[in-house]
Amino acid sequence: MNKERLYIFDTTLRDGAQTQGVDFSVDDKLKIALALDNLGVDYIEGGWPGANPTDTEFFQKKHEFVNSKLTSFGMTKRSGRSADNDPGLSALSNANTPAVCLVGKSWDFHVDIALGISNEENLKNISESTKHFVKEKKEFLFDAEHFFDGYKANSKYAISCLKSALDEGARWIVLCDTNGGTLPHEITKIVNEVIKVIPGKNLGIHAHNDTGNAVANSLAAVWAGVRHIQGTINGLGERCGNANLMSLIPTFFLKKDFSSKFELQIKPENIKNLTECSRLLDEILNRKPNKHLPYVGAAAFSHKGGLHVSAVQKDPKTYEHINPEEVGNSRNIVVSDQSGKSNIISRLKTIGIEIKESDPKIKKLLDEVKDREFIGYSYDGADASFELLARRIISEIPRYILIQEYDVSVKKDSYGKIISSARAQLEVDGEKIVCEGEGNGPVNALDNAIRQNVDKLNKYTKYLKDLKLVDYKVRILNTGTEAITRVSIESTDSKGKNWFTIGVSANIIDASFKALVDSLDYKLFKDKAPASK
Amino acid sequence: MNKERLYIFDTTLRDGAQTQGVDFSVDDKLKIALALDNLGVDYIEGGWPGANPTDTEFFQKKHEFVNSKLTSFGMTKRSGRSADNDPGLSALSNANTPAVCLVGKSWDFHVDIALGISNEENLKNISESTKHFVKEKKEFLFDAEHFFDGYKANSKYAISCLKSALDEGARWIVLCDTNGGTLPHEITKIVNEVIKVIPGKNLGIHAHNDTGNAVANSLAAVWAGVRHIQGTINGLGERCGNANLMSLIPTFFLKKDFSSKFELQIKPENIKNLTECSRLLDEILNRKPNKHLPYVGAAAFSHKGGLHVSAVQKDPKTYEHINPEEVGNSRNIVVSDQSGKSNIISRLKTIGIEIKESDPKIKKLLDEVKDREFIGYSYDGADASFELLARRIISEIPRYILIQEYDVSVKKDSYGKIISSARAQLEVDGEKIVCEGEGNGPVNALDNAIRQNVDKLNKYTKYLKDLKLVDYKVRILNTGTEAITRVSIESTDSKGKNWFTIGVSANIIDASFKALVDSLDYKLFKDKAPASK
Repeated sequence: MNKERLYIFDTTLRDGAQTQGVDFSVDDKLKIALALDNLGVDYIEGGWPGANPTDTEFFQKKHEFVNSKLTSFGMTKRSGRSADNDPGLSALSNANTPAVCLVGKSWDFHVDIALGISNEENLKNISESTKHFVKEKKEFLFDAEHFFDGYKANSKYAISCLKSALDEGARWIVLCDTNGGTLPHEITKIVNEVIKVIPGKNLGIHAHNDTGNAVANSLAAVWAGVRHIQGTINGLGERCGNANLMSLIPTFFLKKDFSSKFELQIKPENIKNLTECSRLLDEILNRKPNKHLPYVGAAAFSHKGGLHVSAVQKDPKTYEHINPEEVGNSRNIVVSDQSGKSNIISRLKTIGIEIKESDPKIKKLLDEVKDREFIGYSYDGADASFELLARRIISEIPRYILIQEYDVSVKKDSYGKIISSARAQLEVDGEKIVCEGEGNGPVNALDNAIRQNVDKLNKYTKYLKDLKLVDYKVRILNTGTEAITRVSIESTDSKGKNWFTIGVSANIIDASFKALVDSLDYKLFKDKAPASK
Repeated sequence: MNKERLYIFDTTLRDGAQTQGVDFSVDDKLKIALALDNLGVDYIEGGWPGANPTDTEFFQKKHEFVNSKLTSFGMTKRSGRSADNDPGLSALSNANTPAVCLVGKSWDFHVDIALGISNEENLKNISESTKHFVKEKKEFLFDAEHFFDGYKANSKYAISCLKSALDEGARWIVLCDTNGGTLPHEITKIVNEVIKVIPGKNLGIHAHNDTGNAVANSLAAVWAGVRHIQGTINGLGERCGNANLMSLIPTFFLKKDFSSKFELQIKPENIKNLTECSRLLDEILNRKPNKHLPYVGAAAFSHKGGLHVSAVQKDPKTYEHINPEEVGNSRNIVVSDQSGKSNIISRLKTIGIEIKESDPKIKKLLDEVKDREFIGYSYDGADASFELLARRIISEIPRYILIQEYDVSVKKDSYGKIISSARAQLEVDGEKIVCEGEGNGPVNALDNAIRQNVDKLNKYTKYLKDLKLVDYKVRILNTGTEAITRVSIESTDSKGKNWFTIGVSANIIDASFKALVDSLDYKLFKDKAPASK
């Protein structure tokens, strides 16, 4: 069967850049464009040349994309001057891209309120702008702003805006749900009408997520005949974001109703790069990735409930709609007080402990986890603390450094000077070692007292030299005076694999201390340090 | 026209609790349930009694909901024992809720792989479990796990599972897209078939977001005739989450195609509480709210681009699909420090300070706020600290208690005993006062040293007697060793109006101290205490 072609248009660098808090550098844009070209999207909208220095500079770079057409964005020419004399259009011509996309009005209310011109004048601006770029041999896209709202208000006028561009040779007419308020059933209904006038092979959809339906609206448009889909990596975009291409692309490839009818320029083997592509954007934005993103989120294939876990182990299809590896993601079994035995067993397996389900130690470990979670522990983000707990119950962990006592103090004197200091008394092989340190705060002082004095720790010195804390988090669990503090610490070393530990106590110092000691113990255990005599 | 009723079922406390990283305390659950009851959802699924200590304890509490039916969750009875002798069902009977929801298999593949029983036995387990609770006069809901996958594999069997529950008196048959892989067009097609056998007035939908379509799938089901919709606050849930009720509820109320056909138990005036409800959950989870959530996100009505901003100022309808105030959200124009000024002025007005925009003190206050927010302060949620700062710059705040120095220490001895103690030297009217105290942790000790000794504070004693701290929160802002700690304190007194203060420092003790001193100062200021001589 001949499949129909779908075209993917990425606007991360243009519409995505309009997001509050997003401020790409030229370098950022180059990195993202390269990732998109490698992925194989059809169009990369690079920005609006002339609108800001970053975009202008980006288009001045030499771009050599293998798969994607670089597209510059602008708006239809102003009233009262010819297309040839419009500085906005000139900036786009100078950007020298194979494709040009112009936004123009298709809602009469906007023509009146925002532009303050007549409906006829707007049509003329659309057709002359189109003619201008078609003459320049650009692949021309007309982005019909507010098309769906415009259609609801004045369908005849909205359609005539599309026709003005199509009749002058526009390759694509993009139906834009600018305010994002259109629902899927309306998309279906309206596209079914539009397609009577504009062929589906020339129609595109640009959806926003203001009702949580950007992905569904894009799919509805495709079912109704649209063949060009605009969106961004991770759904980045103003307000509630654009349609998320990281959700749409895998759906087109992995869901049979789509894959049996449609084909894309993106190679099937490239969709395993989607997770990496999603994370790249967060890295550039210095954001914590959203773990719950469809297909590519870190938790998208996490299983926590006990019943789910035992079934997934028998056959992953039981609780997974696709195989996570197809999109470059992975399965993740979580341990918590929701867990049953099977979570524990499968998690033990991943750390190399093979144990029978009937072994009474499993029940003991599960009870211990549940009891601890009840008082505030949470093992689903604390792999190292879980491993230590499990090994202490099931097999054994040597005793390493014994911390006999500590004393932490924070003093503020009458000049306002604050000194945080700590003293800890440790024992290694029967020898008492006193360590002292200062820090920014009490926890930092205690950490410094121990870790800045690793030279004193005799046989453990070499194991702890490269230990580094990379993150420290505090959460107060209850409210009022009976508050419980949970501290999570993320640690790393020169081998580069991070581990996570946890401590819980009514006392923040004690909670931090517990998490810190777990981190030291885990480091000594994984590096096979000898026990303390 | 007679409108049809839609029923909203919230499963934040059950399915939402299965999310990686989420572990509600009993108190958390009570707070969320109260918010849901106030909102007016039809059903609150509280958890799985017997599955973990938190859920068991939650159901033991006395619940008196005004609008919502508390629902307990479990699974259909096991094979090989009667419903009366099934400990799982007994735990649900003992939970004593007006409604009971049981999950059961409807995909033959699962009956075989996960349960390892015959298809007939599964049907029997469904019908007998239903019968059991109907006899107990519970409102019974059957949650047909994996219904859509089951229907695709063996439609006849999947339907017979539903019939087994309906025929024994189930009120609702909930079609669950457990793995979340079903697409909207499939929901439409399959529900259109199901409804030939099971009336729409008995049908529910439970959608997951694994393809980014949970909201759209719920809407598609409603269009196809389903009248009961399950979801969670903010779409909280395992993997990619559940259908987000904070998106669905406003769509039902604010989009005419829905509001003209359907009505809900939720009162129209209550949807302005949705933003608050969404933020409450993040607050309990100690998470940064997702700014881009449809309707309720802080950026859902943010306008950045210059063109958009100028049009929105002419008429907000130009770039907003609804009026943000309808859901308790607000418009946010991201522009110059000019808009900052008008924010500050309007905020000063609410605390009773009238000041002209041209007054140079406005600029000074704005700069101070910006500098402080840059280092980690956040005055959004710290009304009392903002008022103190503003009054100190614009008018004046008397000097009350001077805290000259303090000394806080935490000691752990070799028996594991931890003692937290604090000593503070205060000055009132030139007289030095030394206060000492102990506590659960260093902050609590410092707080006790000051507030448990208010008797010593001479003329301030009577003002501070009824001061109480009701909440204490800590957030670590940066990562690594350069971490900054932000402490927020919520305080109250016998007049019952709470106030919020904030302290930021590299040192958690100092940050807590600052927030505490602001709380004392604010209390003395608002109660018109005299200045210290």
